[in-house]
Amino acid sequence: MTISYDGTCYSGWQVQPNGVTIQEVMQGAITKMTGEKATLTASGRTDAGVHAIAQVANFRTSKDISCDGFQKGLNSLLPDDIVITAVEEVSEAFHAQKGAVSKCYRYMILNGPHTTPLLKNRFWWIRNKLNVGKMRSALKCLVGMHDFSAFCASDDCNGSKVREILDTRVDVIKKDYLLSMLSKDLKIILVDVAGTGFLKNMVRNIVGTVVDVGLNKIDKKEFKEIFESHDRKRAGVNAPAHGLYLLKVQY
Amino acid sequence: MTISYDGTCYSGWQVQPNGVTIQEVMQGAITKMTGEKATLTASGRTDAGVHAIAQVANFRTSKDISCDGFQKGLNSLLPDDIVITAVEEVSEAFHAQKGAVSKCYRYMILNGPHTTPLLKNRFWWIRNKLNVGKMRSALKCLVGMHDFSAFCASDDCNGSKVREILDTRVDVIKKDYLLSMLSKDLKIILVDVAGTGFLKNMVRNIVGTVVDVGLNKIDKKEFKEIFESHDRKRAGVNAPAHGLYLLKVQY
Repeated sequence: MTISYDGTCYSGWQVQPNGVTIQEVMQGAITKMTGEKATLTASGRTDAGVHAIAQVANFRTSKDISCDGFQKGLNSLLPDDIVITAVEEVSEAFHAQKGAVSKCYRYMILNGPHTTPLLKNRFWWIRNKLNVGKMRSALKCLVGMHDFSAFCASDDCNGSKVREILDTRVDVIKKDYLLSMLSKDLKIILVDVAGTGFLKNMVRNIVGTVVDVGLNKIDKKEFKEIFESHDRKRAGVNAPAHGLYLLKVQY
Repeated sequence: MTISYDGTCYSGWQVQPNGVTIQEVMQGAITKMTGEKATLTASGRTDAGVHAIAQVANFRTSKDISCDGFQKGLNSLLPDDIVITAVEEVSEAFHAQKGAVSKCYRYMILNGPHTTPLLKNRFWWIRNKLNVGKMRSALKCLVGMHDFSAFCASDDCNGSKVREILDTRVDVIKKDYLLSMLSKDLKIILVDVAGTGFLKNMVRNIVGTVVDVGLNKIDKKEFKEIFESHDRKRAGVNAPAHGLYLLKVQY
């Protein structure tokens, strides 16, 4: 299944004792429909407040319900902040997490003198002008296999901090019908980070630090020094969860 | 002041005994800033759940605070679903309601096989394909000075049901960066209605009925017959509040 969700009201993807999660709500809907206990395997967890445009998750069922039947049936059972956008039958061997070759996260920033309430919980609003060229250039040093300790949540103590980033991208969207309808004073800045694996809060910490480059608080050289110091304390703020989207999973 | 708001969590614009309203929250913020009792006069009320891209409201103050100071100060006091997008000083004679020459409302529909959770509470999602040309054509009969009883809330019993519509417009937005990022399967259909005055629920009832034209349930001739019957019971559903936006007020 390909799933889009608004993470605002959830304690992230993965089932946990405290708080409602997307996995839990979806498994409940599947059980309601099939009468079977359901276990969803996703490409990876997303944190509280983080959104997905195309999360991928699989489950097993013995019921003879068509893909279209599952999509329509589950969508009618799910709350309006979770929508299944595609369903397909896969081989027994498919595993949404282990089979994922790479994932791309997108971080969305609104840049301008005031924000718009009609995009709240969708963007990180930054008032001061961001230098997009400098942000783009600074991020390039992340590509490849590196120790990402500097951008890892301090409570993520398990195992290696080495991860592989495949590509980074910073784009400005100036011409967008919806945005220009809502405000003439704002532009969208997108930060895409694609990789084979990510540490906890990694993209949000990268974005929080590269925004300091965009605001001319630090330069590209200092960004690289922070990255290579492996010291989380030197990096910028953890960018708000509500600007982050799981954009795409490659298999 | 020009104000944008997400109406989802409010019982509409106007102060009322039950429920939190936008006017009440804004007046509270002004009082906090100026220490004066504040009364906001808006171009008109908006109903519960209805949004504004550019509501206009005025108030009087004896404080010597700059327009920019008011905008920044109030925005920092207001919740994130209300944003002041512009402030200007006006003459003593200005009255946001009486001075309004016309208003334009925009109704936003998402049309496609599934919706996206990331635009929830922003659009009315309609699964079946809408014929936009037929909708555009049907609405033309509304332009001019007419009795709009057929599109008036049944509990709005006061006074004349004659109102003047200046223009109607139906547009399809197929190419939008944000929308195509969120879903390849959806298009936006906009229904704009501009007029010198509106009855309660008038735009939502017009949209609910013209959508029946778009779905080929009724034709243009039947739409006109319903309109001219002055009978609310013959019109379509009251389209959901969350698709409606106060787009512009002309002075």
